[in-house]
Amino acid sequence: MAVDGIPKEVERIASDIRDMRVRGAGRIARAGALALRISAEKYSGDSLEDFKRYMKSVADYIVRTRPTAVSLPNAVSYVISPLFRLNVAQSVEEAKKVVVERANSFIAYSERAVEAIAEIGSRLLHDGEVVLTHCNSQAVVSIISEAFRQGKRVKVIATETRPLFQGYITAKMLADKGVEVTIIPDSAVRSIIKDVDKVIVGADTVTANGAVVNKIGTSLIALIARERGADFYVATETYKFSPYTVWGEPVVIEERSPAEVLPGTLLAENPRLKVLNPSFDVTPSSLVTAIITEIGVIPPQASFLVLEEMYSREAVHDTVRGVEEDV
Amino acid sequence: MAVDGIPKEVERIASDIRDMRVRGAGRIARAGALALRISAEKYSGDSLEDFKRYMKSVADYIVRTRPTAVSLPNAVSYVISPLFRLNVAQSVEEAKKVVVERANSFIAYSERAVEAIAEIGSRLLHDGEVVLTHCNSQAVVSIISEAFRQGKRVKVIATETRPLFQGYITAKMLADKGVEVTIIPDSAVRSIIKDVDKVIVGADTVTANGAVVNKIGTSLIALIARERGADFYVATETYKFSPYTVWGEPVVIEERSPAEVLPGTLLAENPRLKVLNPSFDVTPSSLVTAIITEIGVIPPQASFLVLEEMYSREAVHDTVRGVEEDV
Amino acid sequence: MAVDGIPKEVERIASDIRDMRVRGAGRIARAGALALRISAEKYSGDSLEDFKRYMKSVADYIVRTRPTAVSLPNAVSYVISPLFRLNVAQSVEEAKKVVVERANSFIAYSERAVEAIAEIGSRLLHDGEVVLTHCNSQAVVSIISEAFRQGKRVKVIATETRPLFQGYITAKMLADKGVEVTIIPDSAVRSIIKDVDKVIVGADTVTANGAVVNKIGTSLIALIARERGADFYVATETYKFSPYTVWGEPVVIEERSPAEVLPGTLLAENPRLKVLNPSFDVTPSSLVTAIITEIGVIPPQASFLVLEEMYSREAVHDTVRGVEEDV
Amino acid sequence: MAVDGIPKEVERIASDIRDMRVRGAGRIARAGALALRISAEKYSGDSLEDFKRYMKSVADYIVRTRPTAVSLPNAVSYVISPLFRLNVAQSVEEAKKVVVERANSFIAYSERAVEAIAEIGSRLLHDGEVVLTHCNSQAVVSIISEAFRQGKRVKVIATETRPLFQGYITAKMLADKGVEVTIIPDSAVRSIIKDVDKVIVGADTVTANGAVVNKIGTSLIALIARERGADFYVATETYKFSPYTVWGEPVVIEERSPAEVLPGTLLAENPRLKVLNPSFDVTPSSLVTAIITEIGVIPPQASFLVLEEMYSREAVHDTVRGVEEDV
Amino acid sequence: MAVDGIPKEVERIASDIRDMRVRGAGRIARAGALALRISAEKYSGDSLEDFKRYMKSVADYIVRTRPTAVSLPNAVSYVISPLFRLNVAQSVEEAKKVVVERANSFIAYSERAVEAIAEIGSRLLHDGEVVLTHCNSQAVVSIISEAFRQGKRVKVIATETRPLFQGYITAKMLADKGVEVTIIPDSAVRSIIKDVDKVIVGADTVTANGAVVNKIGTSLIALIARERGADFYVATETYKFSPYTVWGEPVVIEERSPAEVLPGTLLAENPRLKVLNPSFDVTPSSLVTAIITEIGVIPPQASFLVLEEMYSREAVHDTVRGVEEDV
Amino acid sequence: MAVDGIPKEVERIASDIRDMRVRGAGRIARAGALALRISAEKYSGDSLEDFKRYMKSVADYIVRTRPTAVSLPNAVSYVISPLFRLNVAQSVEEAKKVVVERANSFIAYSERAVEAIAEIGSRLLHDGEVVLTHCNSQAVVSIISEAFRQGKRVKVIATETRPLFQGYITAKMLADKGVEVTIIPDSAVRSIIKDVDKVIVGADTVTANGAVVNKIGTSLIALIARERGADFYVATETYKFSPYTVWGEPVVIEERSPAEVLPGTLLAENPRLKVLNPSFDVTPSSLVTAIITEIGVIPPQASFLVLEEMYSREAVHDTVRGVEEDV
Repeated sequence: MAVDGIPKEVERIASDIRDMRVRGAGRIARAGALALRISAEKYSGDSLEDFKRYMKSVADYIVRTRPTAVSLPNAVSYVISPLFRLNVAQSVEEAKKVVVERANSFIAYSERAVEAIAEIGSRLLHDGEVVLTHCNSQAVVSIISEAFRQGKRVKVIATETRPLFQGYITAKMLADKGVEVTIIPDSAVRSIIKDVDKVIVGADTVTANGAVVNKIGTSLIALIARERGADFYVATETYKFSPYTVWGEPVVIEERSPAEVLPGTLLAENPRLKVLNPSFDVTPSSLVTAIITEIGVIPPQASFLVLEEMYSREAVHDTVRGVEEDV
Repeated sequence: MAVDGIPKEVERIASDIRDMRVRGAGRIARAGALALRISAEKYSGDSLEDFKRYMKSVADYIVRTRPTAVSLPNAVSYVISPLFRLNVAQSVEEAKKVVVERANSFIAYSERAVEAIAEIGSRLLHDGEVVLTHCNSQAVVSIISEAFRQGKRVKVIATETRPLFQGYITAKMLADKGVEVTIIPDSAVRSIIKDVDKVIVGADTVTANGAVVNKIGTSLIALIARERGADFYVATETYKFSPYTVWGEPVVIEERSPAEVLPGTLLAENPRLKVLNPSFDVTPSSLVTAIITEIGVIPPQASFLVLEEMYSREAVHDTVRGVEEDV
Repeated sequence: MAVDGIPKEVERIASDIRDMRVRGAGRIARAGALALRISAEKYSGDSLEDFKRYMKSVADYIVRTRPTAVSLPNAVSYVISPLFRLNVAQSVEEAKKVVVERANSFIAYSERAVEAIAEIGSRLLHDGEVVLTHCNSQAVVSIISEAFRQGKRVKVIATETRPLFQGYITAKMLADKGVEVTIIPDSAVRSIIKDVDKVIVGADTVTANGAVVNKIGTSLIALIARERGADFYVATETYKFSPYTVWGEPVVIEERSPAEVLPGTLLAENPRLKVLNPSFDVTPSSLVTAIITEIGVIPPQASFLVLEEMYSREAVHDTVRGVEEDV
Repeated sequence: MAVDGIPKEVERIASDIRDMRVRGAGRIARAGALALRISAEKYSGDSLEDFKRYMKSVADYIVRTRPTAVSLPNAVSYVISPLFRLNVAQSVEEAKKVVVERANSFIAYSERAVEAIAEIGSRLLHDGEVVLTHCNSQAVVSIISEAFRQGKRVKVIATETRPLFQGYITAKMLADKGVEVTIIPDSAVRSIIKDVDKVIVGADTVTANGAVVNKIGTSLIALIARERGADFYVATETYKFSPYTVWGEPVVIEERSPAEVLPGTLLAENPRLKVLNPSFDVTPSSLVTAIITEIGVIPPQASFLVLEEMYSREAVHDTVRGVEEDV
Repeated sequence: MAVDGIPKEVERIASDIRDMRVRGAGRIARAGALALRISAEKYSGDSLEDFKRYMKSVADYIVRTRPTAVSLPNAVSYVISPLFRLNVAQSVEEAKKVVVERANSFIAYSERAVEAIAEIGSRLLHDGEVVLTHCNSQAVVSIISEAFRQGKRVKVIATETRPLFQGYITAKMLADKGVEVTIIPDSAVRSIIKDVDKVIVGADTVTANGAVVNKIGTSLIALIARERGADFYVATETYKFSPYTVWGEPVVIEERSPAEVLPGTLLAENPRLKVLNPSFDVTPSSLVTAIITEIGVIPPQASFLVLEEMYSREAVHDTVRGVEEDV
Repeated sequence: MAVDGIPKEVERIASDIRDMRVRGAGRIARAGALALRISAEKYSGDSLEDFKRYMKSVADYIVRTRPTAVSLPNAVSYVISPLFRLNVAQSVEEAKKVVVERANSFIAYSERAVEAIAEIGSRLLHDGEVVLTHCNSQAVVSIISEAFRQGKRVKVIATETRPLFQGYITAKMLADKGVEVTIIPDSAVRSIIKDVDKVIVGADTVTANGAVVNKIGTSLIALIARERGADFYVATETYKFSPYTVWGEPVVIEERSPAEVLPGTLLAENPRLKVLNPSFDVTPSSLVTAIITEIGVIPPQASFLVLEEMYSREAVHDTVRGVEEDV
């Protein structure tokens, strides 16, 4: 699975991602961009075509370290796709420069993105409002914290988020900053929704047609928010938008261990008992009021426009194929 | 709080109910009916008016042992309300006979009711169908068991039912009888609903306008079933229908201990963290396909008709007032 | 249009109703019942058949004084319909007694009904809740006043209710009793609904299939309440339920003068300008949470049951025909 | 399958029903009632218990001639169920009289029912309105004809009703009476619905919870009517309401021959081609504005009330069991 | 609040806007553009940076004259934003030229826009159709007038539009051109919607996610149109699209004087009476069929695309900040 | 109708299109592009303005051969619109080159488009899924065939598609490739939808606001899919998107011969019988999950973006006018 001539540092980054020493969509993406920059900087050949082929193989190598996280291939595509556009670079030197600049700009961009989301999202919140959130999203916590820092006394309702109770993390992070937080079982959302002004959740992926893939239970909350007329916002960096879905690639919903849900002994005792434990669900665009991104508050249907602006279609397409061929 | 001249046996029954030695809506109701029968049998006076006053005070005494369970006042009302109708009894002897017969018939009725629900409900299930249920309802387990006994290979999806995981009990009860059961987190209902043919849940109370009060999360599942076109059935004995709601009495939703949801330490550490833990929610009649009762499969809006047939309005009204005055 | 042998008092009552000296659904209905009682008391013949024919003609005469108010024919039907049931009366004396008793019982019933609605409806309101109402309904004002009297600090939002601004009357009546009332233009209901816990409105007529005919704008508010998940209650005496709709009679929506809406000069200037000014609209049963009546809180679909219990089908049918033949 | 001592005339009626010489829900039902009357009249024994057993076996015999039409067992149940109530008859003579009277009254009732539906339903139609109908229902044709006879210029849109084109029959029947009729393909309903004031269709069966079983495509039209705010009425005699559904009996949807849909040659050529051709579909009560019956315009949820009033629960239950045991 | 060195003419324009001598979104916007052009033409310095700073301060000065009307900052942003793009101008002369050209092109554009909307919108109307409108929108009146001019006999239903009755103005403008107009109370919209083919309203602001801010009552009409399947169009120039909402800025809903709704005496008498009188409400994109703009008929979700094409994000962002800092 | 100096080959192509010797949206569009290429190649003048005028008149001539098919004017607009952009060509030679290149690229593009749709769409299908389709769409058949070729055992439900039964063609095409296909009457869609995973249909036109014009019955299926939670995809080349709808041009729904629906004799017999036989209906964007195009899976609201990218607004506008003037 290794690639000829790959620098040691890059191999180390790749193994850090693979073995989960680097975690979180943002950090993984920045590590991938860094690996490409290093690979380009250390490249010693002088054939432009060879360089492009080499970068392509490094890109595939990095993407394969975590095939399910969309932020990684997105970062990679952002960094190398310009190489494959007509006339972008006439020499290896120019091409290297393109890669280095794109990698740097991705890293800087990613670091600024959450900050921008916090600033933009905080404007949507008003003093005294009640915000419901689900699971644990850095973007959502940042928005609420920023609004609270501005003196808006927002209150938060956090679902516990079975089976892993990430809602407790959200609740603790916000309570530690002084925000009043009420924890509820996931199943109590409809009982509490009357008091909720806005729902804000994060996203793992946004598809080309504006559907939002996020922690299991998200689409339930969206459905209830629609029934009761509460706004339903999604907060996410645009590099979680999936260009692959433009080409019809389905978003694979990870099925996790039964042990997260049920004590193993109960299962072992009775062969007729099974557990289903899907990690994510899909919220259709029709249930989403707007997506809060670092480039602004957009309708979910604008995801296709965002993807068009962010990616070279052809290069993405090639990257998709590359991954497919290897699998 | 005691009542003059109440027999020892009746006092014992009352304390058994009060201290939860008698549990379950059906058993409580039958114990109440028994207490009234004993009280009538042991009565020694010969003024009809005195007897009626006495039975009224016993009824109030029994109802107060568990003020929130609707099955108890319903049983009591069933047993004594005929006394207060015109010309039902001309003497204490006749009146005693009325009470004893009503008590006996209630007890027998209650014992047959679950059986009848199982028989009727099982006809709604077809070979190979998938049934989703929530929490742990005796009526629902009986329906599925009966259908399975008839050779219909139904499969069951059971929500785990946070915070107390009663879904595990349901799953175990059915799996022990040979039924294949899949457990899911409550929040995964929308992901699994496409494979579900019918939802069947129990009820704690049915109101005069056909709303169903049941375990927290029930109304969420009803909403999803409606969105996806799955039938949503409620299975319950008619003595869980609440005559008090005819008179506008609200159904009180019990708020239970935060400790059921969250490890106490987390709460103790942070005064800004709170927990809401409502036991029940309310599913509007518009989301209910039908209610499976021992008197047949009825539209939820027929609850008012059922209540009219079951109770003497005036007596119920008096009982309500009785309870109110004492509180 | 007069009827042979009708007593002077009855003629006076009839002209008082016709010329609007008697107003309000309840008062009109009671006047009609009184007129029938007087007519029976003063009857001097001794043929039972003649008496029935006579009472029938008096009934038609009274009903024609105000053909659109359903409470009047309902009162009349309540009073005389038993006459036409098999074996109710064997002599004129018995028949007179029936009419007098029914008339008295209707009058007493009607007087107690609003009181009962206030008591029942007040139980649905909780301390601190916000109630939205439309137009000016005695039943709604009574419910809110009773809840307020009990110490529940309910707040009220009253629509102004164009074109005749009856909302101002409601607002003043409640504010005079100490309730805080906010007046809004009819078109602001959707902007304010988020803060509303319950909508309660009156009714002019309830049809056999549970639709509610009430002041123009009511069905809009019902639609918004449904969209936003607020409960939508109707408060009304059961004698506003229309038995005629059982037989397919349409409820006629009164079209009132353009001058109520638009300054006449504007209309006169321009022949291409018209005004539509319907008094009522129809809210389908699917948008109604429940109807608060003097016999309890019922699902709108129970209206057919209520009508069946209240009226002798055949007599109503005949009354309908009688009215039709004369028109 | 014959029954000992059954009169020749009854056998002939039974075979006429079985071999479709008697057709149409109404005619079949009346023939069944007649057969029971004859059987009773010709009975010569003198044991009341024997007579009841005998009538029970005749009833089962008749019901088995057409097991899927609900009007037949309903007629039979109407005629014989009083026999099984306490104290209805003390001798064979009295019991015979009961059966004969019930049979006669059913026959007369059935003949008047369509007439009453036409009269009631016609009141719902106004001059100039556009009515959409589906398939061919005697009740619907009668309503429209009656309204037209009264001088209301209603226009009709008739779906062609694949696969058997019964819509052509409806169109011809109405056009022959002078009504303007427009035929459309079933799939054009949503394109035309904007011009439709009311939809009226017939019913094959109405279930205990108010669902309507009717010709395939009916529930589609109901869905479109709801989307576009057109009223959706069902016109049917109450003896098509199914008491069996009270006990959970599913309504079996007949699957008819593929040849009705597809030319046989096409199917024969290709083993991978199949046809599904269900006769009926189920419209939920939430999509039905009201049901026009001979006893009035009722909400669909009143079907349970109607069934309660029409049938002795116990007898129906026994009849159901009888049929089950024999099958 | 004045700005150093601002020309007299510009100060006069600013005060005309501030004191409402210039009214209407279009006229205000053109006056703002003119003011910027004059400021640029009169500028005498030769440092490009100074000029940009100066123009920025003039822009802020003008925007502050009417902080709530989105057309004004949009015009300003359109005119000066190119200045802040990379390499647009190398000298003060070039920069002046840019400003003058942009100002001229904005003014011309704005004048042509309503005309284009009328032409485009008129194509959507067919002979004989009924159009419902609300309040008084120049764009809507132009569309209907243009369609009428083309010989299409459209009819109009105009809501009176409480509290200020702007619907009368609309009605008069159209009736004067020969169009038949029917005025209705706002609350009668649901009663009349069955006869409506299309709803067309104007807009005060369109947000980045396609929501439409318009006169109070608009969202009610949109809700009813959706319920009844009528198309709901919004007609507006694209310079009413708000770039500020991209950055999360909420659209402030103006709360106007209670005296517009209620006679002051009534309020003065009773301290428990209040009035809420919001000017606008928000219609979500899901209720809007399409927006008719001068660049074509677009889905509401395309508002983000339109905003991206119209504005330099960075400059808008700066303008937003500028306004914020001063407030 | 001919145009001066048009080459013979072009006239032949035009008459082939007009007389339906060339059929199918794709083939017609490619023939139109070819005709323009030939016209340009054969042009012998040297005035650029004359050439542009000439090409404009040829374009109009070709478009008029089939005024209702949107693919033809779209192809023509694609080929010639660049001519009318500023500075694209300085000489006739350059201009000819532009036309030839655009024509060639359109033809190649069109040939590749269905292939791309098949590849992209096939990724959306999973092994064992059930796909419902309506009418006969080359794009849909290609997607299913491609998925089947990849080894995914998809099953298909094909509506018969009255009145012309194009569903049989679809069924045969797929069954011949080995796919299992079930044919149903159009009216059975709601009965079968529970078993359907995805609906995929073609399109005749997609409007600027994302509405889909397709075979009558399509919008019904979309409505049912929404009710039951099945995904509803549309598969179509982007050159079926209509730029004319940007300018408000309505899509004309072709009304076809009654004889397709009803045997002529029946119609002839009765002058009160009529038939409506619209070819297409309109599915609003809110009912469409996504559109599968050769440029990716897009939300329907992205149609405006796609149209903006594909066409020069001005040229399209001119073409529209051209067509209008001649009609």
